[in-house]
Amino acid sequence: MNIRTVSSYELGQKLDMNPAQIRKDLAYFGEFGRKGIGYEVSYLVEKIKQILKIDRHLNVALIGAGHLGIALSNYNRFSREKLSIVAVFDNAPDKIGTTFGNHTVRPLEELGPVIAEMDIRIGIITVPAAAAQGVAERLVDAGVRGILNFAPISLRVPETVQLRNADLTTELQALAYYIE
Amino acid sequence: MNIRTVSSYELGQKLDMNPAQIRKDLAYFGEFGRKGIGYEVSYLVEKIKQILKIDRHLNVALIGAGHLGIALSNYNRFSREKLSIVAVFDNAPDKIGTTFGNHTVRPLEELGPVIAEMDIRIGIITVPAAAAQGVAERLVDAGVRGILNFAPISLRVPETVQLRNADLTTELQALAYYIE
Repeated sequence: MNIRTVSSYELGQKLDMNPAQIRKDLAYFGEFGRKGIGYEVSYLVEKIKQILKIDRHLNVALIGAGHLGIALSNYNRFSREKLSIVAVFDNAPDKIGTTFGNHTVRPLEELGPVIAEMDIRIGIITVPAAAAQGVAERLVDAGVRGILNFAPISLRVPETVQLRNADLTTELQALAYYIE
Repeated sequence: MNIRTVSSYELGQKLDMNPAQIRKDLAYFGEFGRKGIGYEVSYLVEKIKQILKIDRHLNVALIGAGHLGIALSNYNRFSREKLSIVAVFDNAPDKIGTTFGNHTVRPLEELGPVIAEMDIRIGIITVPAAAAQGVAERLVDAGVRGILNFAPISLRVPETVQLRNADLTTELQALAYYIE
């Protein structure tokens, strides 16, 4: 099937959302659709990518090659979305040099030079809580602009660096709240 | 140190929040603090647990014993917070029967009876996207009240079941949005 246009009604069905809300939300960013025809799919996809700023490539480093780190590195959506994990680091001697997916684990000492050389803008922290602040400081020193922290601890970083926490406990607690 | 009371100012310092906002938020739930003294720590902790409904125990099942599943099972915070992963399932013959942490991976066929027997209320889905809807339906049939979905796909469940998505891609994209 080669679908060229899509209506807000069809989008609403797929996304389980109100079509009027979809039209309103998209209209906020410009005139993308035409009455009675809908949206041209390829144009809409391009526009949404621009709106979400996912039309550009950003290199990502991951620190902590445990199960969570490996799971994230294998998460193929990252690369499809132009956010590629291009380097993986750990400080455990038995992990350094091992390979999974396309990655060979590098020693933490190489963090600074590799981030500079590969123009890495984002660091993902998947080390244990006790090591996370130290890793965050290394990332900041190395010049990353954003940190996604999976360690269950609050990190302090300069205001110039974007920090986002992805504490998996929070999600589970938030879900549990609504369960009787 | 045996700290018995804490002021909203001290809490604000630790949490990087406005003390007035902390007082206001807590006052919404009752009179916990005393002017000039602050909050009695043990009482406040108890109250916050009640407010967040984390003062009760809920059993959790995890389906999908890949890297992400193992990482979540090992995440020690879950048990500390009274949300315990008590059973792990997979359908891969090479995983069934293997052990990690306190868990022995069970075959997916046992899902229904184990959920009933152990009074499991929440299921965490860490299977590949293609298998996730099928697993969600099994969980619903087995009677869970909530699902935390890590598979990068939209799931359909009845309205009586709470669904929460923890797509790791979204976190990374949200972070990337703010990076120049």
